[in-house]
Amino acid sequence: MKRLSQIFQPIITIPKNAKIKNTDITSKSQKLLLECGLVRPTSSGLFTLLPLARRSVDKLENLIKNCIETTGAQRISLPALTPANLWEKTGRIADIGPELVTLKDRHDKQYLLAPTHEETIADLLADVGPLSYKQLPLIVYQISNKYRDEHRPKHGLLRAREFLMLDAYGAHTSLDCAHTTYQRMTAAYQRLFDQLHLPVYQVRAPSGDMGGSVSHEWQLPAASGEDQIHVCVSCSQASLASESQKSCQACGANTKVLSSIEVGHTFILGTKYSDPLGAHYVPSSGPSEPVIMSCYGIGVTRLLASSLEALSTDKALRWPRAIAPYSLIIIGPKEGSKEWSALGENHVHQLHEAICRLPGLDNDVLVDDRHQMTIGKRLMMADRLGYPTIVVCGKAALDSPPRYEVYQTNTEVDATVRMATLDELLDLLSNGHDKDIAANKQ
Amino acid sequence: MKRLSQIFQPIITIPKNAKIKNTDITSKSQKLLLECGLVRPTSSGLFTLLPLARRSVDKLENLIKNCIETTGAQRISLPALTPANLWEKTGRIADIGPELVTLKDRHDKQYLLAPTHEETIADLLADVGPLSYKQLPLIVYQISNKYRDEHRPKHGLLRAREFLMLDAYGAHTSLDCAHTTYQRMTAAYQRLFDQLHLPVYQVRAPSGDMGGSVSHEWQLPAASGEDQIHVCVSCSQASLASESQKSCQACGANTKVLSSIEVGHTFILGTKYSDPLGAHYVPSSGPSEPVIMSCYGIGVTRLLASSLEALSTDKALRWPRAIAPYSLIIIGPKEGSKEWSALGENHVHQLHEAICRLPGLDNDVLVDDRHQMTIGKRLMMADRLGYPTIVVCGKAALDSPPRYEVYQTNTEVDATVRMATLDELLDLLSNGHDKDIAANKQ
Repeated sequence: MKRLSQIFQPIITIPKNAKIKNTDITSKSQKLLLECGLVRPTSSGLFTLLPLARRSVDKLENLIKNCIETTGAQRISLPALTPANLWEKTGRIADIGPELVTLKDRHDKQYLLAPTHEETIADLLADVGPLSYKQLPLIVYQISNKYRDEHRPKHGLLRAREFLMLDAYGAHTSLDCAHTTYQRMTAAYQRLFDQLHLPVYQVRAPSGDMGGSVSHEWQLPAASGEDQIHVCVSCSQASLASESQKSCQACGANTKVLSSIEVGHTFILGTKYSDPLGAHYVPSSGPSEPVIMSCYGIGVTRLLASSLEALSTDKALRWPRAIAPYSLIIIGPKEGSKEWSALGENHVHQLHEAICRLPGLDNDVLVDDRHQMTIGKRLMMADRLGYPTIVVCGKAALDSPPRYEVYQTNTEVDATVRMATLDELLDLLSNGHDKDIAANKQ
Repeated sequence: MKRLSQIFQPIITIPKNAKIKNTDITSKSQKLLLECGLVRPTSSGLFTLLPLARRSVDKLENLIKNCIETTGAQRISLPALTPANLWEKTGRIADIGPELVTLKDRHDKQYLLAPTHEETIADLLADVGPLSYKQLPLIVYQISNKYRDEHRPKHGLLRAREFLMLDAYGAHTSLDCAHTTYQRMTAAYQRLFDQLHLPVYQVRAPSGDMGGSVSHEWQLPAASGEDQIHVCVSCSQASLASESQKSCQACGANTKVLSSIEVGHTFILGTKYSDPLGAHYVPSSGPSEPVIMSCYGIGVTRLLASSLEALSTDKALRWPRAIAPYSLIIIGPKEGSKEWSALGENHVHQLHEAICRLPGLDNDVLVDDRHQMTIGKRLMMADRLGYPTIVVCGKAALDSPPRYEVYQTNTEVDATVRMATLDELLDLLSNGHDKDIAANKQ
């Protein structure tokens, strides 16, 4: 049984306008993650993920891994320390400039901490190459820490200097082939955001420093977002607000403007990296040619924080169910109460065991065993942290059969409450789970 | 069905004394990992883990995670970028000197890329503190990339500049309590090495730059190791060779000298970090005091490479079964052979499905579908890569009932071969698996 009293979760209350070490509080996800004891800043734009946040990131990493691997992508690991000369060959060291974290090793050789790995991948393909056309398309990915020396890191995990990112890279013999991979990867992104039940929009975007011919941003609407998108009120097609248009290009209907946060970006890069770095392949006939590359990014810690921005209230965290630190928390009776005397902790154990037998919940239920605290106080804290389901074992647990208060926090109507017997509770949880599974299969 | 032809595995042959880009070949694990297409150097002491190596590291990370969490340790993530002023407070920035990777950010603030996180943890405890004595002991851990600017990186993954490491930290109210955690963590280490079937010795060690009162190294015997340990021929107690003794302190019997590789290190640190960084706790009575810290490290990529050094021959990789990239590979008939005509690929499919139904093997079987290559050539390559079990579907598959050649590569006797029907094969695999499970439960 996982006990909340055993979890390292340093809860604090930040007075209004208070100065916090290493950080300005500029977003609600940042404030709530800090106050609920999930994240601590160590320095400007750098963060420690405490156990509950780390658990959420684990879940998100697994979801991403499973979605991305449906495309045939293979997981690898590339070093963060990157020889600067690779970036000189593509010209990006000058293009990106002060946002790059750079350093010299003890032999005075110049390195950078990669914000992304197009150069490293092109160099790898050159190093093992030339590949045969039969080996392409090739898709590889990693989930690892990336670095960006932001001038003003802000909003906590939304704009950090060290952050967890998925990056995937495709190598192809032709633009057509690259487009096929691009479609597959687009479907994998959509599958991921469906599983998170997040309304993320794919919008055409300029390629910027990355280069290449096709590019999309993936934007999650959130009131605090710094980007803006136009979304068609009829067909839901979206575009970046910079393209400023009042009617939808696809169907002509009106559009509405939404603030949003970029959570992913995808590119067809062409030969911008493969050409200068010599990543070639041998076609079925004729001389070797540079591979056509594509790349795909999702900011993992950024997506986590963005989803909290989109779903939370000012006072309480709300998570996509699939990545809440725990799906369910049980709050037992207060020590010394009538229920405590009659039921003891054993009743909570049995309730816990019954819930853990449900598929998908076996390792995902937490017990708030801080029995010296009132139920009301613990319920308030559980609601603030946003466990999707909160089960209170209070007075009504003395009824025959015992009944429990059940709070569903991540529904449209905030914190739906109902009383339920054990059978009704198990039924409710099974159906909710089934619904999620059905949604995931769309 | 996982097909070898779909895996990115750039196999090369390195001629004797050849110059390889970015690297000198100085160890057999390094040579074999490179030749078998599992690892590529990107720069001196920096490596890309290709899909098969990444898969092995995934398995090792999971094993470590499961073992370490038996102690109650909670997973967190600390940033690699670390403000240098923390290390100035403990004096380690001067002690370690040029092995630290250091850099300045765009605002000219000094950082280092952490080789270990004692300062960060002490700073975190100070930041959230003072903790109550009721919150202790607290054990946290992470598995993340660490950095060391080695003067001469060598032996591939054995001495890299960026490497994956488990680091765990304990915080306690007393030395007694720290010793209890230390014992638990020692048991977790032993459990891990038992599961890998590696004869790792725990030896008393000087604390060096880390400081503190108690310290052990964990040494794996390997002919290529740069350390030396004395191991008692009678009771197996081991000590560092630097303590130079010819008879065992525990039982008086003779000792033998073994070359070995350090794969882990454990320390009771006392207040070396908590005192200067202000990591205090409040006892049940009296003023707050610095916590007693302990720390625990395992080089993850180093342990992987060390186990290959210990188990492999000069010509073929040999893995602890639990972390081989795949447990089993099936080699199907050559295209155009009599078996191919009679059985086709369908026979291999069915064999694959039958094996995947065995517990623990469902996602861990690979099919070498490069049917244009002879069985002999593919067998040689599978043996060189060291899949623990190789199943060849050749001529004898035409027998009634069909029979398969089964090679067990990670047994004492190298590459045991036998002929087996499907039932015999499944029996053999189930028993082998049971034996592993039994060993893990010791």
